[in-house]
Amino acid sequence: MFVDLILKNATVLSVDENDTILYDSSVVIKDNYIYDILSDAEAVKKYESINIVDIKKNILMPGLINAHTHLPMSFMKGIADDLPLDDWLQKHIWPVEAKFINEEFIYESSLFGAGEAIKNGVTMCNDMYFLEEQVAEACKKMGLRVCVGEGILDFPSAVFTDLEKRFTYLRSLSEKYQKDRFVDVAIAPHSIYTCCNDTLKRCVEFSKDYNLPVHIHLSETKKEVEDCQKEHGMLPTHYLNETGMLDLPIVTVAHGVWLQSDEIELLKNKNISVIINIDSNLKLASGFPPMEDFVRYGMNYCLGTDGVASNNNLSIIEEMGTLAKLYKGLYSDPTFLSAKEVVRAATINAASALGKRKQLGSLESGKLADIIVVDVNNIESQPLYNLYSQIVYNLNSDKIKHTIIDGKFVMKDRKLVNHDEKELILLAKNYQKQIKAGE
Amino acid sequence: MFVDLILKNATVLSVDENDTILYDSSVVIKDNYIYDILSDAEAVKKYESINIVDIKKNILMPGLINAHTHLPMSFMKGIADDLPLDDWLQKHIWPVEAKFINEEFIYESSLFGAGEAIKNGVTMCNDMYFLEEQVAEACKKMGLRVCVGEGILDFPSAVFTDLEKRFTYLRSLSEKYQKDRFVDVAIAPHSIYTCCNDTLKRCVEFSKDYNLPVHIHLSETKKEVEDCQKEHGMLPTHYLNETGMLDLPIVTVAHGVWLQSDEIELLKNKNISVIINIDSNLKLASGFPPMEDFVRYGMNYCLGTDGVASNNNLSIIEEMGTLAKLYKGLYSDPTFLSAKEVVRAATINAASALGKRKQLGSLESGKLADIIVVDVNNIESQPLYNLYSQIVYNLNSDKIKHTIIDGKFVMKDRKLVNHDEKELILLAKNYQKQIKAGE
Repeated sequence: MFVDLILKNATVLSVDENDTILYDSSVVIKDNYIYDILSDAEAVKKYESINIVDIKKNILMPGLINAHTHLPMSFMKGIADDLPLDDWLQKHIWPVEAKFINEEFIYESSLFGAGEAIKNGVTMCNDMYFLEEQVAEACKKMGLRVCVGEGILDFPSAVFTDLEKRFTYLRSLSEKYQKDRFVDVAIAPHSIYTCCNDTLKRCVEFSKDYNLPVHIHLSETKKEVEDCQKEHGMLPTHYLNETGMLDLPIVTVAHGVWLQSDEIELLKNKNISVIINIDSNLKLASGFPPMEDFVRYGMNYCLGTDGVASNNNLSIIEEMGTLAKLYKGLYSDPTFLSAKEVVRAATINAASALGKRKQLGSLESGKLADIIVVDVNNIESQPLYNLYSQIVYNLNSDKIKHTIIDGKFVMKDRKLVNHDEKELILLAKNYQKQIKAGE
Repeated sequence: MFVDLILKNATVLSVDENDTILYDSSVVIKDNYIYDILSDAEAVKKYESINIVDIKKNILMPGLINAHTHLPMSFMKGIADDLPLDDWLQKHIWPVEAKFINEEFIYESSLFGAGEAIKNGVTMCNDMYFLEEQVAEACKKMGLRVCVGEGILDFPSAVFTDLEKRFTYLRSLSEKYQKDRFVDVAIAPHSIYTCCNDTLKRCVEFSKDYNLPVHIHLSETKKEVEDCQKEHGMLPTHYLNETGMLDLPIVTVAHGVWLQSDEIELLKNKNISVIINIDSNLKLASGFPPMEDFVRYGMNYCLGTDGVASNNNLSIIEEMGTLAKLYKGLYSDPTFLSAKEVVRAATINAASALGKRKQLGSLESGKLADIIVVDVNNIESQPLYNLYSQIVYNLNSDKIKHTIIDGKFVMKDRKLVNHDEKELILLAKNYQKQIKAGE
């Protein structure tokens, strides 16, 4: 049988239900999907292709899903660090946003960010910002799968003078990408403290009307929780529950740092997933998400980097390592959060969170061919006793050799396929100069 | 004037007293030393060389010093993870050591480890193990500067049947490398719980007689502190102080996780440095070193990776990032431990700790030319607003492009200069097979 692409001589880390690992195997790709996974010996007999790539016994695994990004902030990477949150936001981030944000900036920053994501082995981002059509187009140009969450908040911004315009924009956005292979559209009420009760309820109705997933920041800082209790007399999750939002089919909450047990139980019962952004939480000193409770209640958790303005990179590999090590220390328990569990968080858990478990998150026949190849034939990665532990504790993102999305190489031998890298670097340098001069 | 090497067109992060940063500058190297640092324009007028390397505006900074390693354990990288400490040690590490450790294993494992260190931008290791002559020779072969700490402990090991033999070995080791440019020799009493009081005192005398620095594990686990209080009625540092060890001129204590305020004050007054191994402490759930107290008492602290069996890599870059972010979270203070302070910890602080502040740790005329070049002309590293913050929060080790030790390239464009990498990888793979079969 003729197929589009055969990735042969691979160590296949499938992340399927049984944690299957196959050595000396081939992944066969046809029409953007994984058509078959089988031994090299069998593959030679059954399939032919003009496109056969030797993986050289490196690790072939599902693409990483970055479940919380702000790609349009890419040019603000490292703009201000080691500062109190208020200074960071009010003296640095907001003034830059007020001055620079427009369609062109968002497109170019997202184009750059999409390239950066791919270089980090990310095959899908769950993004949240404004004017997300630009993000969608930038990601498509780069070949990156994306869920674009159009931000909703009450106060006027540099982009939208009133709430009505935000909903109008979102309506046309959701119509435009209804049948797009690469782009999902979500509604992204920013948070309970930037959207009033009416706005949150309107988002719920809008989500129902247009069948859109919801992406929201929840319980990121202690202040958010305290303010909610003061203003509404209840915890943020309970407040959100009263709007009806938690009964929607696909809801992802970012951060969840200060969630309490009964909130976690409620979220779990409503089948809602939490996105952990551990590097950002540490760096901004937001607090420590209650991982033990997430695990105890069987809540689905996945990983995000947050924006590069607070991270300062898009490395899900780094998030995995930090998360697995940090909680061993915090709970004085070296067995807490195994490497295998953390690899699942970055892949199949994230696919579940975004309502795409049937299409993404593991290497299985019938799923979309979103795949990365991790180079282990190097000094830093040898010797190799355990694939999971090497990925989580040893690896850095630069060891990701190829990124394949929808069956197509978007990074090959560490080079982006769909855009000239030098041009992107020049773009970032030019914006950096302008932003620095304008600060 | 003719010189050996000119590194031109660089962004020089000097890590000197004034945190000087120079753009469009050249570092001039003669007889293994930094001879001059000046603008490219001036350099062209003053110096000539047949060896001029264009740094392409990348960051040129002092080599990283890994102040606590066990290089001979390189082939045990990732051999057992996510386990309780006792299982890890007794069921995995010790059996492998008992079965495999001999001079050849130690040489080859250290050769591999030295290569790995260099690939991580490390220009000097402060090592601790047994048969350290093999470590010294392996590092020299690879071009890595090293302080070899010969381990002293009471009970017989696979290598030494009694204590006397350890001291005899150490005597000849210290004589052999007395005038070596690359190798310092240290005495490394393993810890207060593996050396009895007499042995510790004998180490102190030996250190005086042979003028050797001391490298010791101290206060790594809570159990160590509790046992010391039970057995000796005092805290580990006070116990060590009674042996006279803290009055020696160069003493580095590794870990210091459970040090209490008065111990820290004592160590600071004795001018002793602590080596923080944060990734290993987290992964083994040993606890959190009291950084706030180290800072408050002005104690000199530097960074180590510990062995790859517990880390699982030799990335000082990763240690920097983890440290700077973790304590912001732990202390709910995003301003605690700035990126600049952490860069100093990995360079000049480490040089001070090892008694080499006049020779190493910063880029200044007259110092040894131990230098790394960090590539910032790539998507992940752009835009670049602040050099320190990019190094600590954004970077991974693979962005280190060149490593220069003693004025010679030991890694150029990510390739080791002094050894074939494929051969090293094969070596690791072969040992991995043997170890796995023998486990």
